[in-house]
Amino acid sequence: MFFTDGKLQYPVRVETPDPLFARALQQAIGGVEGEIRVAMQYFFQACGARGNTKFRDLLMNTAAEELGHIEMLATAVALNLEGAPLSIREEVAGDPVGGAVLGGINLKNLLSSGLAAMPVDSDGVPFDMSHIYASGNIAADMTANVTAEATGRVLAVRLYGMTNDPGMKDMLSFLIARDTMHQNQWLAALEELGGHEKAFPIPNSFPQDQEQQEFSYAFLGFQQDGSDPIAGRWSQGQSIDGKGSFKAGPTMAMGQKPTLAPAKPNSGAQSEQM
Amino acid sequence: MFFTDGKLQYPVRVETPDPLFARALQQAIGGVEGEIRVAMQYFFQACGARGNTKFRDLLMNTAAEELGHIEMLATAVALNLEGAPLSIREEVAGDPVGGAVLGGINLKNLLSSGLAAMPVDSDGVPFDMSHIYASGNIAADMTANVTAEATGRVLAVRLYGMTNDPGMKDMLSFLIARDTMHQNQWLAALEELGGHEKAFPIPNSFPQDQEQQEFSYAFLGFQQDGSDPIAGRWSQGQSIDGKGSFKAGPTMAMGQKPTLAPAKPNSGAQSEQM
Amino acid sequence: MFFTDGKLQYPVRVETPDPLFARALQQAIGGVEGEIRVAMQYFFQACGARGNTKFRDLLMNTAAEELGHIEMLATAVALNLEGAPLSIREEVAGDPVGGAVLGGINLKNLLSSGLAAMPVDSDGVPFDMSHIYASGNIAADMTANVTAEATGRVLAVRLYGMTNDPGMKDMLSFLIARDTMHQNQWLAALEELGGHEKAFPIPNSFPQDQEQQEFSYAFLGFQQDGSDPIAGRWSQGQSIDGKGSFKAGPTMAMGQKPTLAPAKPNSGAQSEQM
Amino acid sequence: MFFTDGKLQYPVRVETPDPLFARALQQAIGGVEGEIRVAMQYFFQACGARGNTKFRDLLMNTAAEELGHIEMLATAVALNLEGAPLSIREEVAGDPVGGAVLGGINLKNLLSSGLAAMPVDSDGVPFDMSHIYASGNIAADMTANVTAEATGRVLAVRLYGMTNDPGMKDMLSFLIARDTMHQNQWLAALEELGGHEKAFPIPNSFPQDQEQQEFSYAFLGFQQDGSDPIAGRWSQGQSIDGKGSFKAGPTMAMGQKPTLAPAKPNSGAQSEQM
Amino acid sequence: MFFTDGKLQYPVRVETPDPLFARALQQAIGGVEGEIRVAMQYFFQACGARGNTKFRDLLMNTAAEELGHIEMLATAVALNLEGAPLSIREEVAGDPVGGAVLGGINLKNLLSSGLAAMPVDSDGVPFDMSHIYASGNIAADMTANVTAEATGRVLAVRLYGMTNDPGMKDMLSFLIARDTMHQNQWLAALEELGGHEKAFPIPNSFPQDQEQQEFSYAFLGFQQDGSDPIAGRWSQGQSIDGKGSFKAGPTMAMGQKPTLAPAKPNSGAQSEQM
Amino acid sequence: MFFTDGKLQYPVRVETPDPLFARALQQAIGGVEGEIRVAMQYFFQACGARGNTKFRDLLMNTAAEELGHIEMLATAVALNLEGAPLSIREEVAGDPVGGAVLGGINLKNLLSSGLAAMPVDSDGVPFDMSHIYASGNIAADMTANVTAEATGRVLAVRLYGMTNDPGMKDMLSFLIARDTMHQNQWLAALEELGGHEKAFPIPNSFPQDQEQQEFSYAFLGFQQDGSDPIAGRWSQGQSIDGKGSFKAGPTMAMGQKPTLAPAKPNSGAQSEQM
Repeated sequence: MFFTDGKLQYPVRVETPDPLFARALQQAIGGVEGEIRVAMQYFFQACGARGNTKFRDLLMNTAAEELGHIEMLATAVALNLEGAPLSIREEVAGDPVGGAVLGGINLKNLLSSGLAAMPVDSDGVPFDMSHIYASGNIAADMTANVTAEATGRVLAVRLYGMTNDPGMKDMLSFLIARDTMHQNQWLAALEELGGHEKAFPIPNSFPQDQEQQEFSYAFLGFQQDGSDPIAGRWSQGQSIDGKGSFKAGPTMAMGQKPTLAPAKPNSGAQSEQM
Repeated sequence: MFFTDGKLQYPVRVETPDPLFARALQQAIGGVEGEIRVAMQYFFQACGARGNTKFRDLLMNTAAEELGHIEMLATAVALNLEGAPLSIREEVAGDPVGGAVLGGINLKNLLSSGLAAMPVDSDGVPFDMSHIYASGNIAADMTANVTAEATGRVLAVRLYGMTNDPGMKDMLSFLIARDTMHQNQWLAALEELGGHEKAFPIPNSFPQDQEQQEFSYAFLGFQQDGSDPIAGRWSQGQSIDGKGSFKAGPTMAMGQKPTLAPAKPNSGAQSEQM
Repeated sequence: MFFTDGKLQYPVRVETPDPLFARALQQAIGGVEGEIRVAMQYFFQACGARGNTKFRDLLMNTAAEELGHIEMLATAVALNLEGAPLSIREEVAGDPVGGAVLGGINLKNLLSSGLAAMPVDSDGVPFDMSHIYASGNIAADMTANVTAEATGRVLAVRLYGMTNDPGMKDMLSFLIARDTMHQNQWLAALEELGGHEKAFPIPNSFPQDQEQQEFSYAFLGFQQDGSDPIAGRWSQGQSIDGKGSFKAGPTMAMGQKPTLAPAKPNSGAQSEQM
Repeated sequence: MFFTDGKLQYPVRVETPDPLFARALQQAIGGVEGEIRVAMQYFFQACGARGNTKFRDLLMNTAAEELGHIEMLATAVALNLEGAPLSIREEVAGDPVGGAVLGGINLKNLLSSGLAAMPVDSDGVPFDMSHIYASGNIAADMTANVTAEATGRVLAVRLYGMTNDPGMKDMLSFLIARDTMHQNQWLAALEELGGHEKAFPIPNSFPQDQEQQEFSYAFLGFQQDGSDPIAGRWSQGQSIDGKGSFKAGPTMAMGQKPTLAPAKPNSGAQSEQM
Repeated sequence: MFFTDGKLQYPVRVETPDPLFARALQQAIGGVEGEIRVAMQYFFQACGARGNTKFRDLLMNTAAEELGHIEMLATAVALNLEGAPLSIREEVAGDPVGGAVLGGINLKNLLSSGLAAMPVDSDGVPFDMSHIYASGNIAADMTANVTAEATGRVLAVRLYGMTNDPGMKDMLSFLIARDTMHQNQWLAALEELGGHEKAFPIPNSFPQDQEQQEFSYAFLGFQQDGSDPIAGRWSQGQSIDGKGSFKAGPTMAMGQKPTLAPAKPNSGAQSEQM
Repeated sequence: MFFTDGKLQYPVRVETPDPLFARALQQAIGGVEGEIRVAMQYFFQACGARGNTKFRDLLMNTAAEELGHIEMLATAVALNLEGAPLSIREEVAGDPVGGAVLGGINLKNLLSSGLAAMPVDSDGVPFDMSHIYASGNIAADMTANVTAEATGRVLAVRLYGMTNDPGMKDMLSFLIARDTMHQNQWLAALEELGGHEKAFPIPNSFPQDQEQQEFSYAFLGFQQDGSDPIAGRWSQGQSIDGKGSFKAGPTMAMGQKPTLAPAKPNSGAQSEQM
């Protein structure tokens, strides 16, 4: 169950409204690296968590924080749009900047929402909830969360570099710090789950003697000329999960040329296929 | 540039065609944890890789392998569908199994593709390429790849448990082994990039003195009653990136109650909003 | 800013887990009439509300409630899935019910989420945030919210009729009551905005003398034989907004046969089009 | 069955082609508030209407009109695009307006359709038919239609304010008038269905003694500090459906902390979850 | 501008309602081979047609027919759903057929639309208007239309084979005949545009001396072992457009190993990439 | 199984990076006429091909080529983006071109991928795999492939006309030539399948005496005034499939006014509908 206090987690100020930056901020709301994604991902992972309930609590607590981040960013978008023009003025030919602004924003921020934020990305594409990864495997979920916060911080850093507005830079410096914490937080959760050697390969509940172990730590090459694939930490030494040793070399087809049965009568194929 | 040899990487055999299992296998083709996703993700990451070219080579090599995995699974789907009925027989009332089969498959596998695989998931939803994470940050990409292989192996293990067909179990035991390798491979790449202490927080190129460091390692609580959030590795000790110490406690709003300007005239709002 | 207490707003009990009903409940989570939709719709409307701040507060308060409804339903889905089979047993031919269950659920609830809820509808289609209507016009938003709660209560009533489980019926009887309240609540907000005669036509800020008033209250007929369109309250009497009188009759084209210029050279058209 | 006369319902003239305005008009074609949506929504509601057939007739008649509106807008888009540049001229550095135009249009209007309209919104996102609300409940459908026309008129008013072209303003003044009528028309249909007191709560066929009536007219507060929620028409007085009295106050969790069973063996979870 | 007469183009009768067949028919409404697609494709092609207006008239005339086909199929779906159960009866364990029916339909046809048709495919996926191909090139459009009618007739034939209901077979035998006509109609339009030798390669307005003619009629082999690609009509003889002669053989890379510049400072990449 | 050599099929050079052109090139990667579409379409058609295996080989060979085209275009996008600004400079008001560039690109190419290509179209919309047509009917598939290459060449020609960069023009002149070949190649495959008279109507396996032959070659008119539809090759003479003669004339409804049963009790409809 959720509660609100009607306030923002951290101050949101815009000194010079910039409609183009409003468009960019939309990526942090409705982009695949954005805040809707993390809020809903942690929420659904929490709802489906089985086993030790501390992970449910950890996830739902952070989901609550991320909801507040959407709110901060949505406020920032609305404030940045307050300077946007509503019409293509007659003088547009003589005032290219005006035209550039209208051409450069997501028009839906004007036409659909009346100068407010929307759950879309920086090109106006709506967020699609298939991006909520909640696998039922707690280690896979924690890994997905590290990824989400890594791409999220990359995005926040790009936004930070794009603006000169002191209010926006201040807000982003807070969000970047929270992404630092959240990357560490999910890595810490993976450590509680045993780290690389206990948690991997994910899922750790599958008996590895049932997999084709000849291929479990082999770096196979798919170079057309049959040469070895590029060498690196992945081609020699102990595997990261501590359960094997990397080996490397070119590979070739072990399987057949596939053949399917002819098409069935009445299956809508051409006669020649039957 | 790509080449093909017309053969399968590993043998694909189906002893007893099972249309319901064909539907389940679709998840491994067109699901968000499936093979189209990894093939295209590694491909686009390779195409956009900047810096040391060994990562481009590593990524494109593995993209080539994953294309072959789509091919294996598509063959498996087609072979499993060869036993599917094409019509609702008159006797369906007296033969519930027949009806259950037609009701239980993705009908598009019959109506749209004529008993062949499609780039859709196990509920018939087409794969959407927004799931291709290629961030331009090599460490974020490697983390995303560990996630992709973790969820991919979880899926393959679930499919393995769902079938009794020896051919299918053999194929899946190979794919599970490859997922083991690929999890390790991307973790190894992260190790080459310096591991937790050098690569994190991602991106490592942002000067941390520009983030609000007070919040960079703080586990904030959002419990309605103001209690502390659940304790764990994430609430005390050195941070995983080695650059701070975790602390924890409840939090409260630092920001204002947000206020937006009244709606502009001619903005399509109600008069009362202006 | 949001807080959680880790509990459910109302008890969620499942006496007899039913995987088919879990699938049906998914519609109330990720369907276009579902709880993600209302939670996010009220949230974004609140964030973009301009004018009297009481509407922001009203909206955000109810957004918080709806987040708790998603949580209740996600718990209900997970509990109902606890009885689902994980494998296609050898005996499926002799036990059609087993096959029907696996065929009848969203396979992603098993393969992707490990027997937990997902942000998808009852056919496994992910929720798409383009369904969040937040127009920047407070009266249009309130109308959209009445619609959301009307279709939401229709759905909840259908789910209520579909199950015999006492726990599920109890939970739904609560959600149906809340939908009753929320329909009334948004209608009450429309009343505060002046009701039919002050709020309509939406937006009420557009001077009606700039519209083609000859057509503002005319019920036009598009019957191929030129007959009058079906009569009703909409074809005579005062208009509902009190600003005109309905009239009715057949219509015919007032505009031209459209003609476009020939295709430009170099525009990728056929030569014959230029 | 449908017929056409090859003409436009109302004249469409463009005096000064404006590619940016063409982009904006796309929202009225393929946006969620656009004409494809209403045409198809009324069409599908008509096809599924059960009960008094006058509603089927009313709906299909208006669907026919809306198809003509798509045609008008598609013509307007094509005419506005006739001035668009096809190439990034060498002089773009010295002629920023040229670059702004190409940058400001939906490039698909040029690259995919050759300077013609497409079923996409103003940011190039294709219309998705999940926006067709046809619930099988005639009162819910009428409410959805008021919403569609309310957001549609808001959009048309915004477009009207954005352009100075007399032909475009004339066309929009007609479409705005039709939206006025259609809002009134669907409100009139709701009045025929009994208005607020007979039609609500929707569906009116569910016996209210089966809902948890204690919560049917209660405005619950979800303020973190336990304070009362914002007061208004929704917190006191008779409910709008005339079947209860509003009351208001803070609320708290009535349900349990949710607990799910441990993960099943072979379910792809981590060992620690089992 | 469009008109309706409220009747169906051809009789629609269902003798024995079959909810599973209703689900299959949904593919012919909202599938990518379905009637919404052709109706809207011809409509948008008509609206954007430049050059000889006879093609606009041809396209809009057929768009009107296809709208009537959606209406027929939507009626067929609603009639087939009239036998569907609304609840999971207590006796489901003892009556597997009942469970199979509920499990086998698109639940949205019950939960969202109340036993009526929806603009979705046979797996409940909504139609997405990006499938409307209207290229601005009249020959490309006609080719796309042949494709649409070819896949449409394949689908109709599959549906015909799936049902035993005389009414449904009669309706489908009409729709199959119309698909025969429409395939021929668009092929005839291509013949009017000059057939293979005048219309191809599409677009015929591009001067072929500006393409790399060495590769214009060469069937290149991408076999890993450097062998010749499979021979056929495509590897020798005059090209179908009459403008060259086919030749065939293996190929190899002509381009470089791609190298991108290092990542820019402040671009969110890892330090190592800069 | 697939292999790579790490090189580009044809040289990719960019003399003057142009971020707007990078955006346009995205259409050729992730647009519905783009290279992902053809690569994956041929791949899935190959995997599902039944009957003569030469078509599988033909399709998979060309799929390999198209994968290389995605690689070329992705490289071209990254090279064109190397000149893009990363920030909204203070001087934007005085330097409208800078603003126009940031406003004119897909911001995701900057914010999500760090100046690299993505699997999205020129307006930032991700590619959706429902566009992969693989029907199980080899003639329908070949027709779909002609369409894909026709719209693909139209797009490439538009891109060629949009740029002045010699490197980009050279790359596109190669891709245009390949589209010429591929149009011819698939037309040649149709010729091997018997051409118009043997392959059409598709599918050729359905006995035409089971269709309503009265309507198989009739060009029906849907003009509101009952006039004849526009005449052309499609209204007289032998049909293109050689199996009938075209005839033409107006048509009228043969079917009934549709009537559905009243809504069922407990179906969520209004009482008045039951």
